Amino acid sequence: MSGSALVVGTGLLGTSVGLSLRRAGWHVTLQDRDERAVRLAESLGAGSREAPATDPSVVVVAIPPHQVARVIHQLSQQYVNAMFTDVCSVKTQVQLDVERLGPIGRFVGGHPMAGRERSGPEAARADLFDGRPWVICPPQQAAAEQVWVVKDMVIACGGEPLVMDAWSHDDAVARVSHAPQVVASALAAQLVSAPAQELGLAGQGLRDTGRIAASDPSLWLEILTANAAPVARILDGVVADLTDVIRALQTIAHAGVNGVDESTTGYSDKAILSSREEVHRLLGQGRVGISRVPGKHGAAPIDYEAVPVVIPDEPGELARLLVAAGDAGINVEDLAIEHSPGQPVGLVELLVLPAEADPLRSALSEKGWSVH
Amino acid sequence: MSGSALVVGTGLLGTSVGLSLRRAGWHVTLQDRDERAVRLAESLGAGSREAPATDPSVVVVAIPPHQVARVIHQLSQQYVNAMFTDVCSVKTQVQLDVERLGPIGRFVGGHPMAGRERSGPEAARADLFDGRPWVICPPQQAAAEQVWVVKDMVIACGGEPLVMDAWSHDDAVARVSHAPQVVASALAAQLVSAPAQELGLAGQGLRDTGRIAASDPSLWLEILTANAAPVARILDGVVADLTDVIRALQTIAHAGVNGVDESTTGYSDKAILSSREEVHRLLGQGRVGISRVPGKHGAAPIDYEAVPVVIPDEPGELARLLVAAGDAGINVEDLAIEHSPGQPVGLVELLVLPAEADPLRSALSEKGWSVH
Repeated sequence: MSGSALVVGTGLLGTSVGLSLRRAGWHVTLQDRDERAVRLAESLGAGSREAPATDPSVVVVAIPPHQVARVIHQLSQQYVNAMFTDVCSVKTQVQLDVERLGPIGRFVGGHPMAGRERSGPEAARADLFDGRPWVICPPQQAAAEQVWVVKDMVIACGGEPLVMDAWSHDDAVARVSHAPQVVASALAAQLVSAPAQELGLAGQGLRDTGRIAASDPSLWLEILTANAAPVARILDGVVADLTDVIRALQTIAHAGVNGVDESTTGYSDKAILSSREEVHRLLGQGRVGISRVPGKHGAAPIDYEAVPVVIPDEPGELARLLVAAGDAGINVEDLAIEHSPGQPVGLVELLVLPAEADPLRSALSEKGWSVH
Repeated sequence: MSGSALVVGTGLLGTSVGLSLRRAGWHVTLQDRDERAVRLAESLGAGSREAPATDPSVVVVAIPPHQVARVIHQLSQQYVNAMFTDVCSVKTQVQLDVERLGPIGRFVGGHPMAGRERSGPEAARADLFDGRPWVICPPQQAAAEQVWVVKDMVIACGGEPLVMDAWSHDDAVARVSHAPQVVASALAAQLVSAPAQELGLAGQGLRDTGRIAASDPSLWLEILTANAAPVARILDGVVADLTDVIRALQTIAHAGVNGVDESTTGYSDKAILSSREEVHRLLGQGRVGISRVPGKHGAAPIDYEAVPVVIPDEPGELARLLVAAGDAGINVEDLAIEHSPGQPVGLVELLVLPAEADPLRSALSEKGWSVH
């Protein structure tokens, strides 16, 4: 089922919307104040620069947040039958802005959870949204058919529509994106005054944890400003947890690590034990929390059981192993390879449903595989 | 120049030490109280379980910190000519412990700056230490030749020896490793009570920032306990910065995003401006801080090239793909599977040596695979 869209703003997101809709057979027209951008988007095949002859089914406004409401109001007078949506990363504010200018009754906000480090139409991709969640936030008064028009557009783009109210969306992105940005920045800020030799000891842990601290401060200032209350709320939780751990570590440090001499330190064994419990609790909570984050495409985390098999590091061995698993009638859900150059053998972990782990172990052992 | 080592403790680090020393031609014997672990380490090629016939040149004790001193003292009576080292992540405490039990005069502590969030011999790699700093903390009385024995072992493992006093080491790791662990845990802990739908919006930023929160809480409890004071000091700085940003965001939130009505909110434009500056300042500091982290050590020694292939989501297809790669004589070093539930196709990324990427692409394309 194909439709027609007007894309306003041919940056990374707008151009990618055009490319993916064209791929799905939609008719797409493009607008941008920046002549170079819209010409490039057109020549990439994202759509045509000619004004639509009739009302498009959807107008996708892909411009900076503070301009969205004004542009939607303007265009709503020109295209009186079209639905309107946006692609901003904060939804309550845009929705309020649109309503404040006089509700048009045809706006359903959206937020594709996709992006790239590069920006502009140059970085656009027809598959940018494939399999990615695309949040749709219908205002309370939106009719089901209106929501469907936007959903159809999202599906045509390859995205997976996820309907949520604007408040829940903003809370969610505060938790999974905006607060992590601030925390990474605060951690990385402690490196500014560190001796260079100390930084030479940095490993992958710090690089991963701090990676997003390298993001553009001006861009993030706007995002955080637009979602200030939810972000502050999540950060409050982080600070409360950190404060507890700091107090616990200070107790441990004052008492000495190996034991306690109550007469000289004023700390009892009990204080140490409960401090250790406090630290352990947070580490445990963190582990539970991160395990709840689904895999790349939003799949629910499933507890597979790992069956480790040592295999020779030779072409074809992995295939032979998978064939053996298939012959045993067992579906390998995922696998992980632990291997490093210069090592004569590799370790393959076959991830299967728990009930299939034992049958798989037996079947492979029988055939001479080194199962562990 | 090859030597001989006894590795005590065949977890992630011990087994990786064995694998890397074997790669360098060393003779390695393995010990562990856990029969399963030491058998797996042996069959992975990390060394032999037979007791060494003569004194090894180095005994590497890769067990939990609080057991290190006792085990070293025990083994120092058995191997009277061997040097002893450990791989604990905190150095002052271990050094004090060893001296407290009666100095053996043959101990030089070490700390390889390498690790993984997974543990156990299953996760061991021969290249775990390649190009990574490996701190060596000689006690003041250690002779230069003794330090060289440990340095040689580190170099044979592929590590880059870095001599430092124990106090500087502990301060450094608090900043670049231990405090980041707690911060990642505190961030991930905020996900525990989040609605599952919200977590579906998580992107790569959260996965990176929170990745190390998946680490073993019991292991980290010991590390943090052993380095409590320096870690508490760094975390204090993080909390101070976060507290400033929270206050700034609350000011912005109370005033509303789009403007300020001083008469009703009690906030002035000036308050908003200085709050925005506060947020911007931290984001900027974070960017400066992370840019100071040297890049080269964290990089994998070999950058594999990814060959993405879209395959039907049917039993046997992955095996068929790997058979095709094997038939082409190409060794798949690693692979990643993109889960896409509800979609008829899946994306498999075959990771191969850069020189083999093009031949693999051609071979697979010829056989009709959808290579991208």
